[in-house]
Amino acid sequence: MLGNFSYCNPTRLYFGEGAIENLNAELPKYGKNVVLIYGGGSIKKNGIYDKVVEILAKNGKNVAEISGVMPNPTIEKVYEGLEIARKHKADLLLAVGGGSVCDYAKAIAVSVHCDEDPWDKYFLRFEEPTCEIVPVGCVLTMVGTGSEMNAGSVITNRASKLKIGHVFTDAAVMPRFSVLDPTYTFTLPHYQMVAGIYDIFNHICEQYFSGEDDNTSDYIAEGLMRSVVHSSRIANKDMRNYEARSNIMWTATWALNTLIACGKSTDWMVHMLGQAVGAYTDATHGMTLAAVSLPYYRHILPYGLPKFKRFAVNVWGVDAAGKTDEQVAQEGLAAMESWMKELGLAMNISELGATEEMVEGLADATLTMKGGYKVLGRDEIVAIFRESL
Amino acid sequence: MLGNFSYCNPTRLYFGEGAIENLNAELPKYGKNVVLIYGGGSIKKNGIYDKVVEILAKNGKNVAEISGVMPNPTIEKVYEGLEIARKHKADLLLAVGGGSVCDYAKAIAVSVHCDEDPWDKYFLRFEEPTCEIVPVGCVLTMVGTGSEMNAGSVITNRASKLKIGHVFTDAAVMPRFSVLDPTYTFTLPHYQMVAGIYDIFNHICEQYFSGEDDNTSDYIAEGLMRSVVHSSRIANKDMRNYEARSNIMWTATWALNTLIACGKSTDWMVHMLGQAVGAYTDATHGMTLAAVSLPYYRHILPYGLPKFKRFAVNVWGVDAAGKTDEQVAQEGLAAMESWMKELGLAMNISELGATEEMVEGLADATLTMKGGYKVLGRDEIVAIFRESL
Repeated sequence: MLGNFSYCNPTRLYFGEGAIENLNAELPKYGKNVVLIYGGGSIKKNGIYDKVVEILAKNGKNVAEISGVMPNPTIEKVYEGLEIARKHKADLLLAVGGGSVCDYAKAIAVSVHCDEDPWDKYFLRFEEPTCEIVPVGCVLTMVGTGSEMNAGSVITNRASKLKIGHVFTDAAVMPRFSVLDPTYTFTLPHYQMVAGIYDIFNHICEQYFSGEDDNTSDYIAEGLMRSVVHSSRIANKDMRNYEARSNIMWTATWALNTLIACGKSTDWMVHMLGQAVGAYTDATHGMTLAAVSLPYYRHILPYGLPKFKRFAVNVWGVDAAGKTDEQVAQEGLAAMESWMKELGLAMNISELGATEEMVEGLADATLTMKGGYKVLGRDEIVAIFRESL
Repeated sequence: MLGNFSYCNPTRLYFGEGAIENLNAELPKYGKNVVLIYGGGSIKKNGIYDKVVEILAKNGKNVAEISGVMPNPTIEKVYEGLEIARKHKADLLLAVGGGSVCDYAKAIAVSVHCDEDPWDKYFLRFEEPTCEIVPVGCVLTMVGTGSEMNAGSVITNRASKLKIGHVFTDAAVMPRFSVLDPTYTFTLPHYQMVAGIYDIFNHICEQYFSGEDDNTSDYIAEGLMRSVVHSSRIANKDMRNYEARSNIMWTATWALNTLIACGKSTDWMVHMLGQAVGAYTDATHGMTLAAVSLPYYRHILPYGLPKFKRFAVNVWGVDAAGKTDEQVAQEGLAAMESWMKELGLAMNISELGATEEMVEGLADATLTMKGGYKVLGRDEIVAIFRESL
C-alpha cells in the first residue's frame, strides 16, 4: 500500500549536450558572490573549468574557489570550505563535479549561517537547518549519486571513522538547478563509470526491496532498473555512446530524488554496510556497495521472497514456469551477479582493502536500518561482512 | 536518443488519506483573498466542501466562490470567473474537483492580470503569460488528467466548436500545491472512474508511441502502464479498494507531469481526435479517447512496428516466440482491447453521440500533430473517425 507522504522536488534540470549554456539563464537569479566548488582538478584538463569560469565572468560574478574536494568529503574539509564561503559572503555555491562535490556543497549551504557545529547538528543529530540556506547549483560531471536533484549529503568523519548521510527534509537544500551534459561524463575512467552505474542500481534496490506491496513506486523502479541494465551493457563496451550514457545519467537522477521512495519504507542497509567499508578503506562508494550487496540480498531473501521473485521475473526476465519461488528468486540474483561481473564491479571487500581483522570494526561502524525485510542483528552484520571478504 | 530538454516541476504534493489537513500548512503562505473554485456541487454532498471551508475559515481567509465549472470548461465560463476573481483581488485560486476544475483555475490564473483576451492569447496563439500569475492550489477529487502537477489547461469554445489544450512553459502556472486523497475519489461513479483510468493510460501512450528509441522515459512509461493496468483490474471490481485507487491516483500524476515526455517528441494525436469528439458531443474526455484509440493505433502500427512489438511484450506480456513482429504487435493491441472492454470503456464514438454526418466536421475540428509515427492526412483522419463509428 502507498503510505501517506509528501513530495516536492523543485530542482530545475537542464539536460543534454551543450546544456552548460543554460548557466547564462540561471546565474542572473542570484547575487554577485559565487563560490565555485570542485574536486581534484580533472575539470581543468577537460575544459569544463574554463567554460564555467568564462560564463561566470560573462555574468559579472565575483568568484572564490574551494578546490580539492575529495571522493568521500570530510567534515574537516567542510570546516575549511566554510571559512572561504563565509569570508566571500557567498550568494551561490556552484558545485562542478560528481556527487561528492555536490554533497559537499550542500553541507556548506546549510552551515554558512549556522552557529552550531555542522557535524554534530546535521550528521550526528540529523537536525534540519534553522538558519538561512545558501543556494546550490550543480554542473554534474560524474553520474551515480543522484545528488543533483535531492537534499542528501554524505560526509565522512575520519577521526571517528564514520560516514554518515543526511537526507534533509527542507527542499531548499536541493540544488536550485543542475546542468546534466552526458558528454561531461565521457572522460571518466571505466572503473568510475561502472561504480556509478552500480550506485544507481543499488539506490533503486534499496527502495524497491522494502515494504510488502506492489505499488506504483515498484513499477517505476523496475522500469528504471531495466533501463540502467540495458544502457550499462552498451556503455560498458562503448563508453562514448551518447545514448547509453545519457540514459544512465537520467536514470541516476530519478533513482534517488525521492520519487520511487514515495509510500515505501525503504531499506538502505547496503549503503550502511558499504559506507562502513568506505570509511575504513576510502574505496569508491559504488564499489563498496557492489562488494556487500549479494551476501546481503542472499541473506534477506527468505524474508522477502515474493519481492525477490518479482525482481527476477520483471527485471531479469527469469522464466518462472515449473520452478519454486525460491528457485526463481535465486535465479534473479544469479542474473544480477552475472551482470555485475560483466561490468567488472568489485565482488568482495578484500579487493577494496578490507581485511578479516577489520570485520568487528566494520560492524561497529555500521548503522542498523529498519525499513528492509529483516532488521539485522550484530551477528548477522558480522556474518555478511565475512561473507563479503 | 534522449533529446535535450529542461525539467522543473515544483508542485508540492500531499498524498494519502487525510492529506487535506496539509492545507493548514499551505494557506498561510498566501494572502487573505481566496477564490474557491468547484464544479457541479458533488463536493457539497460528500463533505469535502464543508471540510475545505472549515479550514479556510480557521486560517482567516476571505473567500469568494466560482461554482458550476463544467466537465469541459468553456471560455465563456472563464470570462464569468474572471470578473469574480478580479473583484475579489484573488491571492490564491483553490480548485476543488477534477482536472476540469484545475484546468479552469489555471486559465483564470493567467488571465486575472492580463489585458488581452485569454482565448485568443493562450488558446489560439499559444502565448505564454506576460502578466502576474495568480497562484493555484488544488484539492483533487477525480483522477485522470494529471492537471494537479502540470501547467496544462484545456478550454472549450462552444461557439467555434474548438477544444484546445495549452501546456504552458512557465512553471508558475502549475499548482503550487495539490492535495491527493484517494478516498476523495471513492464516491465517483464507475463510468467516471474508468474514463479517468483510460485518460491516464492514453496520456502514457501519447508519449510512449513517439520517437524511435528505447530511452529511460519509455522504461518508466512501461512501469506506469503496467501499474495502471494492474490496479484498474482491482478497482474495476472493488471501487473502494484503497490500494488500487491510491496507485491509480499516483500513476495519473506521473503520467502527465512532463517526466515521461523528457527527450521524446510525443504524439497527442489521440487527444486531438478525442477532443474533436468532445467538442461535438460533450462526452466524457476519457471515453472520447477510448473510442478513437484502437482505430488510430491500428492505423499507425505499420509506421511504428518495433515500438508496438515492444509494447506487446513489455506491457501486456505477449510471448513473442515463433511469431512475426506484426503478429506480436497486433496481439498487444488485442490485449489492450480486451482490457478496455473489461473496464467497460466506450469502444466507438456512436455510443457517445457522434454520427456519420458529423465526420467531416470532426475532421475539420481535429488539429494535426507531428510527433507520432505518421503525420495524418485529412483523408486518414476521416477514415479513422469512420472506423470509430
